[in-house]
Formats: sequence, structure tokens, C-alpha cells
Amino acid sequence: MPKRNRVTNDSGHKKIQKRAIPLLLSCITTFPLFSVQSSANSGIDVYPPNWWVGMQNSNVELMLYGDGVADDTVSIAKGDVRVKHSQALDSENYLFVTLDTSNASAQELVIRLTDSDGTTRDLTYTLEKRAQGSASREGFGPQDAIYLIAPDRYANGNMENDNVKGYGDPADRSFKGGRHGGDIQGIVDNLNYIQDMGFTQIWTMPMLENAMDKYSYHGYSTTDYYKIDPRFGSNDDFIALSTEAESKGLGIIMDMVLNHIGSNHLWMKDTPSHDWINNNGKFVGTTHKREALHDPHAIASDIKGFSDGWFVPTMPDLNQRNPHLANYLIQNAIWWVESAGLSGIRVDTYSYPDKAFLSQWTNRIMDEYPNFNIVGEEWSVNPAITAYWQAGSHRHDDYDSALPSVMDFPLQAAVVEALSNDESWNSGFISVYETLATDFLYGDPNNLVIFPDNHDMSRIFTQLGHDKDKWNMAMTLLLTTRGIPQVFYGTEILMGNEDSEDHGIIRSDFPGGWPSDNDKNAFTGDGLTDDERWAQQRVKGLLQLRKSHPLQFKGLLKHFAPENGVYTYIREANVDSASGADKSNTNQSDKILVILNKKPVDLPLNKYAEVLSTHQTLTRVSDGISFKTTDTLSLPAMSASVFIVQ
Amino acid sequence: MPKRNRVTNDSGHKKIQKRAIPLLLSCITTFPLFSVQSSANSGIDVYPPNWWVGMQNSNVELMLYGDGVADDTVSIAKGDVRVKHSQALDSENYLFVTLDTSNASAQELVIRLTDSDGTTRDLTYTLEKRAQGSASREGFGPQDAIYLIAPDRYANGNMENDNVKGYGDPADRSFKGGRHGGDIQGIVDNLNYIQDMGFTQIWTMPMLENAMDKYSYHGYSTTDYYKIDPRFGSNDDFIALSTEAESKGLGIIMDMVLNHIGSNHLWMKDTPSHDWINNNGKFVGTTHKREALHDPHAIASDIKGFSDGWFVPTMPDLNQRNPHLANYLIQNAIWWVESAGLSGIRVDTYSYPDKAFLSQWTNRIMDEYPNFNIVGEEWSVNPAITAYWQAGSHRHDDYDSALPSVMDFPLQAAVVEALSNDESWNSGFISVYETLATDFLYGDPNNLVIFPDNHDMSRIFTQLGHDKDKWNMAMTLLLTTRGIPQVFYGTEILMGNEDSEDHGIIRSDFPGGWPSDNDKNAFTGDGLTDDERWAQQRVKGLLQLRKSHPLQFKGLLKHFAPENGVYTYIREANVDSASGADKSNTNQSDKILVILNKKPVDLPLNKYAEVLSTHQTLTRVSDGISFKTTDTLSLPAMSASVFIVQ
Repeated sequence: MPKRNRVTNDSGHKKIQKRAIPLLLSCITTFPLFSVQSSANSGIDVYPPNWWVGMQNSNVELMLYGDGVADDTVSIAKGDVRVKHSQALDSENYLFVTLDTSNASAQELVIRLTDSDGTTRDLTYTLEKRAQGSASREGFGPQDAIYLIAPDRYANGNMENDNVKGYGDPADRSFKGGRHGGDIQGIVDNLNYIQDMGFTQIWTMPMLENAMDKYSYHGYSTTDYYKIDPRFGSNDDFIALSTEAESKGLGIIMDMVLNHIGSNHLWMKDTPSHDWINNNGKFVGTTHKREALHDPHAIASDIKGFSDGWFVPTMPDLNQRNPHLANYLIQNAIWWVESAGLSGIRVDTYSYPDKAFLSQWTNRIMDEYPNFNIVGEEWSVNPAITAYWQAGSHRHDDYDSALPSVMDFPLQAAVVEALSNDESWNSGFISVYETLATDFLYGDPNNLVIFPDNHDMSRIFTQLGHDKDKWNMAMTLLLTTRGIPQVFYGTEILMGNEDSEDHGIIRSDFPGGWPSDNDKNAFTGDGLTDDERWAQQRVKGLLQLRKSHPLQFKGLLKHFAPENGVYTYIREANVDSASGADKSNTNQSDKILVILNKKPVDLPLNKYAEVLSTHQTLTRVSDGISFKTTDTLSLPAMSASVFIVQ
Repeated sequence: MPKRNRVTNDSGHKKIQKRAIPLLLSCITTFPLFSVQSSANSGIDVYPPNWWVGMQNSNVELMLYGDGVADDTVSIAKGDVRVKHSQALDSENYLFVTLDTSNASAQELVIRLTDSDGTTRDLTYTLEKRAQGSASREGFGPQDAIYLIAPDRYANGNMENDNVKGYGDPADRSFKGGRHGGDIQGIVDNLNYIQDMGFTQIWTMPMLENAMDKYSYHGYSTTDYYKIDPRFGSNDDFIALSTEAESKGLGIIMDMVLNHIGSNHLWMKDTPSHDWINNNGKFVGTTHKREALHDPHAIASDIKGFSDGWFVPTMPDLNQRNPHLANYLIQNAIWWVESAGLSGIRVDTYSYPDKAFLSQWTNRIMDEYPNFNIVGEEWSVNPAITAYWQAGSHRHDDYDSALPSVMDFPLQAAVVEALSNDESWNSGFISVYETLATDFLYGDPNNLVIFPDNHDMSRIFTQLGHDKDKWNMAMTLLLTTRGIPQVFYGTEILMGNEDSEDHGIIRSDFPGGWPSDNDKNAFTGDGLTDDERWAQQRVKGLLQLRKSHPLQFKGLLKHFAPENGVYTYIREANVDSASGADKSNTNQSDKILVILNKKPVDLPLNKYAEVLSTHQTLTRVSDGISFKTTDTLSLPAMSASVFIVQ
């Protein structure tokens, strides 16, 4: 069963704000900031603000926004592209112009708009050359480990942009639902820490403009799809973060919201068409009954209730059945991949937008970047539901999903169940075993993103009753089993939310990220408790193991059915697979053996003869002590042991 | 997660008997009773004891059992069949002879065995003509309702056979794990009750010979696959039951055990081959980890541990990879279908036998009877696991299952969860809604067998805390939602097992089934409490509804996502389907509307405008009161309302 991922008021993202907030607020002062291109283009905004030649799809549909532009005639005053189509909708201020760039080289175009009395306006528009290797870029994968950051809460690298003129919701670190000042510079400043820990990917919660009056810190109320919120930095700052991260072996995964916008978005003030926003632009809450999409017994109103309902009144729900809106969102995603050199996308509230659109969106992106990775958030603990969305799954219908990855909520829940309940034939480690056994439902289980917790749920340390041993077992499992682990910032230092499930508390500030954090600094280790330091080192040790043994983590998982509170598995390179058979890698034949046990146990290692050879040496990662396969291990209660088998 | 279906010692079937019982016991006195054919055939037993011409598969493999028969040469002394193959295994007393009946008419054959010194023994063997329509027989289906009977505990129609010479485990009605004397005659005597209630199918727990020393009453320890246990009656009695039942519109579903035998079976005394019994004929318990069969991460020993392990020491586990044993079990099933005119088979512990064999077994039977029905018991509450086995499911591998039906354990668990837990976004009716929504995993959800309880679990009345309202909601739901309902004898009169989970208590005697049951007789109603009588009438009312509206129950289910503790659905004929479009059926356009609610509620019926037309009349089944679609229903707390909509 799915957990509902929205509970309290000031959690921001996906929460019902109980106070009545008018849909349109006095944020008009923000509009001049809307697009950097506008001034050069006769007061007309163009989205996307530029494009590239050499794309798989040679068409690009521009959304022009400007006074009375809808009835203008479009022509090309300069440049070798063709106007393929021009389409006005309901608003007189939008015009959708499709250019065919088939035979174009990189160049600056001049697009001419001619109104009914012959007046012309010229727009310059740039077709750029793509960066080398852009199309074949590798997305994040099973060898990676992802660090999830809430930018407002991680580190404040630039105090100057804590408040920006024209934007409300002023910085207030004392308010759990307010902006705390964290920004892109804060992340840039701490890339060494992230790299040093052993992470290889960074997923940041959304940083696009959220010109909202309250709870704007979380970033899920987009008011401009083409602009980084100036409280976080500029578009250039974001691109610089990506470049700097790449130089340290770190990819950037962008969090994208396709389902809804923030209610202060221009589209709520000047709506392109009557069908742009679901439910006629009025708030009707989603049912959250995602099953209806697949249910052979569903009634139509339950499908509509799920897909067309809004999360909260401040998040108008987009109708992606409108082909111009669909194109807008598809091109926006490609624009950011191409502009910022992304290594992946995380899609917020996947499954809530129109189902046919989701197919189109993922296919269009994957057509442009066949080796890319995109992970969808489908908050269900039923693997039949999560698996439905993954590309390659054996689904019951002919739905064409190109989504490479899904968030593995079923495994998250199973790990907590496994460690919270006593061992019996149907509780304890069997929860994890059975969940992984059900992997036959997925097109690619090793490409699922797995996680102990995230920004929308209690910290794993809290979910496990602030028990260090259980935390260690959970982290060990999730950093070594199949899938791509994601660690939420702060979870590596035992951050919890003991007294509150409020999202603002869950997303507390990372210690050391603010100049005034004198007492405690997790980046340097200063002021951390022994437990916190131990936890950080444990995560680091496991991440280093992943870095030293990528073939094993890209490879196979083989697990033994749990027995007497002991759960054991190995990771090994997949010698059959072309990608795994890298003969130059000297530790290709290593195996990683993981043993989780609840009670103290003496374990003869020959029990695992099926996966271990005789005369092999097992080196424990935590202390470097070696064992022979003929030895009997004495393990204390509640331990998580990881061995390199050579 | 699967529930393990075996807990206490004297539950008989599928229980670990803690007392050490030698594998081979002094039951040799039972062997002369072994086969009625033996006396006529020179001391040689032949299995199957007869066969038919005109079968889809024209080969039949005979198992001959007799002193030193293994090295005999086989020829046909009389008859137009051909000896296709003759094969001895390890025991000198078995010979496997394959006959080709391609061009044969019904006849009596003489099969001649010639030993090395030229001595001959002649066996007569009958090839019969098939009953008309046998191959095209219709199996049970979604329009049916199944009554599950524990024959030893239902009614004792023949006191003469309570104890039979040569058999141990004497009748003792005071012992919960003992034989109580119920028999085939008891069922025959009460067919009118079963028919009158509205059931259309009877599934009896196994009645094949169980010549075991203890706990033989349950029937799951077969000691002769071709012989009804004489404590229940004769083969002829069983056939007569089927004939008599058919005349009352009742089909017979036979319970078959492919996984194991009873330890007093001849095969444990004289084993046909070294590989006939798994684990070299020695007890090694099954792991019950059925997931291993599907798990992409499974290790081989977990698959073997599941499939080859035994349930209990008294139930030796058959190795169906032996092709002669496989053939024996397949032909045995066909023999009973053909001999006794069965309308279906229930397969015990489906998934535990060899997986390839299961495919072969179901395919061979369905090849002979394409319209037949077979339901497998796969005790897992994970629909991805149960669905795997159903024919037509979209599975991840190329496994070829021809199994038409599976027991719906996931729905059983969901109904109990729904009624045991308070309503919230992730508990209460949502459990049922989500389970049914996951029906996209199944090849044919409406052909699943659904049930409130069965012979291996606590009575539903007990599972629901002896709450009549909850019982009513569960029974109403399970007698009206998609699937083929199965009711365990006694559940219709609120039988429970308040103080014990012992299977012998769960399978208590049905009141009125014994001549000495003077105080209470559920067949006549004498001595039933008001609650028991009410319950019986409620089940009867719902079964009558099924009988009057078969097209609706063969048709569609459409349900509304639960809201505020109200769960609503309709059943309607599938006018698109050929089978549903019976224009001669005058109530084809009726719909059945079911509303389950927890709190008192005033429900405007126009809420369901999506499935109800205006100006329709709703007639409540329980009291015949009519409503208009413009009315508002006032429903008391915890009610289950069923309406015929016309």
C-alpha cells in the first residue's frame, strides 16, 4: 500500500496549506525577472530561450509570450530554418511556433513577427552547437551512490542572496518552514566533502524559481521553468556547479516537477488556454489513488480524480494532454540536460501527470540521450505498481514507458519492517528477502534507486527508534544490495527528527553549513559526537567499497533465504555481461559478502560454500581482519558485516 | 508475504508431527486392499486400472506391480493396441509399459508378460468408451459457488464403515485429531441442503486411501492414488455421489495431492526407483520459501530446499522429475476426471512439486478437457506470486502454466485487514480496493477462487473477533465481488474456533451430521441460535442472488475507491463478451450494487450516477425494499447492503 507523502502544513511540497491563500498574489513584481532573453526581444519572452542543432528531433516548438502576439504572422528574417507551424490558443499573448532545424547549422536566427497592420517585431534566437558527447552522455547507474541535498538547508555559501528584491518569503532560519539561506555556492563550497565521502552523484531538490509567498524553500512550486531561483543563484551558477562537480567525478541529477506549478506562475495570471490547468484552474484535491490507473475494475472518475486532482491549492495541476504544454515540458527537460550537462533527472510525483504524456516525455528524452538515466518517484510499496513504470517490465498492457528507473519505496518499507519486527517465519529479514525476490516484476532491478529515507519521510535513524545498530544494518544493506543507493544529507551523521514529523524539521540545517555554526561542523568533523563521527565513517567506508568495486555493484546479487535471524548475500561481477567483463580490472573476481544478524551467532563460513570457494580469504571492511572459508565467525548481536572475498 | 499454513501437531495435513514416527509402520495388513484389480491379474496390480479410447493423448503408460515383473517381456495377446515402450527401473517388482491406443476401439485387452524362462502371465485390461461430452465438460466457473467439506467432519451417513478391518486410526469422535466417522453417504444424504442453500459445486477434502496410523482423517497422506478410503466409502460410492450431485446441479471438485504421499504408501516399502522420493527418501523439511522459484537473485539451494523438502516426516516428497512418476500422477488425475465425472480439481500445495512437472501436469489435463477448471493452492498473500501460476498472466519468463485458477489468498488477507483495522488513507477498505486493483497481474481475475476461510486457517468468524457485522460484511463481499466464492462447511452458521487454532477444532463436526446430534441440527435448523439461523439465511440469500444473476457474476466488477469508510461496487453482465450476451436472459440488464459502510451514513444515490441510470429502481436483497436513484440511503454502522438495480 502506498504511503501518503504529505502530512503537515508547513512541509511545503505536497502539503495542504490550511490557510486560505488567494491563487494569485502580489508577486507581479517578480515578472520582470522572468526571462533574461526578454529585453533583447522587443518585450517578447521565448521559451526555450535557445536551442541546439543536431538534435534527434529536429523540430523545436517555441512559446512566444508578449502583448498581443497571438495574431502575429511568423517568418524567418535570417537563418536557414523553416517555420513549420504557428498556433495561437486562447490567450492573445501566446504564440506557439514550431521551427524545423533539419538542415541548420549553429547560428543566430532572426524571427520576424508581423501584426495585422504590418508592424513587425524581430526576435533573435540562437541555435547552438551541442557539446561533444552530449547525446551519448552516461546517466547515473548501479555503480553510483547519490547524495540528496535540500539546497536551502545544506550550506549557505553566499549571504548576499539570502533575500532578493522582488521576492517574498524572506530568509528566517528560526522558522522551520522558512528559507534558511542555503544555496548553490554552499554546495560548490563543499564538493570536496561530498567527493571525499565517496558519493558520485548529487540530487538536489528543485532550484527553479519558486516566487511563492510562503514555503518556497522546498522548490516544488515552480514559477519559472527556465530560471534558477535567485535565492539559490543564477542559471550560470547552476551550470558552474555542474562543471565543478564533474571535475570531481560527481554527476548532477536535477529534480523536475511535471505535475504542477506554483500558483504564482505567470500561467495562472495569463493562462495560455482554457485547458492548460486541470479542473478548470480551480482546486480539486487529488485522490492519491494511483492504483486506479492500472485497475481493471476502475471507474473513470477515480482515474480522473487521481490524475487531474491538485496536491494543494498553491500547486495548480497541469493538463499535459494539451500538446503545447506537453512539448513545453519535454523541451524544458532537454534544455536543462543540454545546458547544464546533467547526468540524470529525478521526476517528482511521477504517475500523477497524464499517463500518455509520461510515455511521450520519457521517450523523447531517452531518444535524445539513449544512455541517460531518469528516476521517477512513485510512492507505492506495492512492487507491482512501481514496476509498472519501469522500462522493460513485463506489464499487462501495451503501455510504452521509457523510464529507466523508479524509486524503490517497497524496499525502503521492507528494510524498516525487517529491522523493527522480531524474526519469525513471516517477519524480520523475510520482508527484505521477499521484496527482493519479487524483483522479477522489474525490467531492471539493479537500476532502481534505493534509499533509507528521503526528504518526504522521517529520518531512518528516527524510523528505527534511534537505534545505532539498526541504523548500521539498514545503511549497510542499502549501500550494498542491488540498486543505486541514495543517501539524504545528514543521514550520514545520524540526523533524526525525534519530536516532529514536520518536513521542515526533517529537512533541518546540515551542521557546519552556516558561518555561525561554530559548535558543530559535519564537514570538518568538529563538534560531532562519537556516534555521529562513527556513523559518518561507516557510510564513508561503504561508499569507498563501492568505488573500489564498481563491477560488483553493477553486477549480480545472490542472497540466501534468511534463517534464524541471519541474512546473507553476495555481490559479484557479472562475467557474462559485456559491461561487466572488464579484464583490465584487477579485482574483477572479488566478491563482496554481507552478513546481517540479529542474535549473537557462531557462523561456520562453509555454510556458504555455494558462493565461496575453498581457500578464499575474507577481509572484513570495518577492521581489515581476515578470515578463511574454513573459519567460524563469531558475530555479536545486531551486526552488519561486510567482507571482501579474494 | 505468505502465511505458513501449518502450525500445530495434530492438524494432520501439512503439520510437523513432533513425535518420532518411523517411516515404515506396521500397516502391511493394508496392502491386500490395495487394488481391486489385482486378484484378476495373476497377482499383478495395474495402474491406471483401466483406460479409455478416444483420448487426446493416445498413449497410456501402465505401472505394473508384481513379483519380479521388471524383467518380463511384454506383448499383446489380444487387442489392437501396440506396446510402444517397456521400462524397468530399480525395483524388480515394477514395470512401466506404454501402450499406443491410436487406432483402438473400446475392448478388453490381454497383455502377456513372459519371464526369462518362458513362463507367461496374462493380464486383462479394459479400454472403455468415453462418456458423451466428457472431453468438452465445463469446469466450475465464476457463476458458481463452492462448498468446501471435510468429509470426516460433515455427516456420518454410514456407521458400518466408521472402522474397517485392516486399517488403524480407529474412529474416536472425542479426539480432535481422530476420525469422526463422516463419509460419502453423509454428503449424499445432505445434497438437498447444499442445493437448497444455493451452492453449485462441492469441493471435498481428499478421500483417497490414507492408511496412516494417526491423523488420517484429513486425507492428505495418500496411500493409494486409485482407491477411495473405505472409511469414506468405495470408488463406486464416490462415483454415485458425483452422479447424484450432478442431478441436483452440483459439480464435484476433487482435491488432489501431487507433492507428497503418506509414509505408509507402498512406494516407501518397495520404491520403484532410487529417485522416486526427494532427498533420497529421508526427511528434510521444506523451507516454504516459495519466492525462490521466481527470485532473480535466488541461489540454487533455496530452490531445492523449497521444492524437494518434505512437509513432515510422514509425508514423503515425490520427485516428479522422474518421468514415470510424472506420468503416473497425470494419468491418475485424468482417470478420476473421466471415471467420476468431475467438474474440477483443487490441487494441494501447488508450487511445491517440480515446476516443469506442474506445467506438464496442467497442460496434459487441459489438453484433454479444454473447458475444465483446476484451482491451485498457492498460499502467498503476494499477488505477484499467486498470479505467476495462473494461465494467461503476463509473467516475466516463458514458463507455460495452463492452470486456470489459483486460490486468492491475497484477497482473503485483505478482507480481514479491511475489517479489522480502522479506516485511514492506508488502512481499512483500501486494503481490499488495492488488492483488487492489482488484478492486472492475473490472466483471469474472475476465475480466482475466493474465500473467507478454509480448512487450514481460523474460521472467518474467529478471525473477525466473533463480530457478526464484520462476518456479514466479509461474507457479502466475498459472495459478490469478482471470483468464484468458496464457503467452508459451517462458516454459514457462524462456526468458530475461539479457544484454539488447532486444525482439528477448526474442522469440527457439522451439527446434525451424526445421528446422536439431537440438540442441534444445521441441516434442519433445529436448535440453531437466532444468530446462526440469521447467518445461514444471509448466505442463502446471497447464493440465491448468484443463481438468479449468473451473467452479472460471470461479468464485470466496477468499484469506487473507498471514501470515508464506504466501499461501493457493481457487478454487471459483460455485454461485449460472447458468453455474456445471452439475449434470452431477461435480467441481463440488471446490475448488482453493493455498499459496505463502517460508520452510519446518509448516502445520496446520485453519487453513483456513473454506474446507475436515472429513473432506475434499487431493490434491497435483504428486505425487498425499493429505492429510487434520486433517494438518499440511510445506512446504519457496519452494514453490507446489496441491491438489484433495474
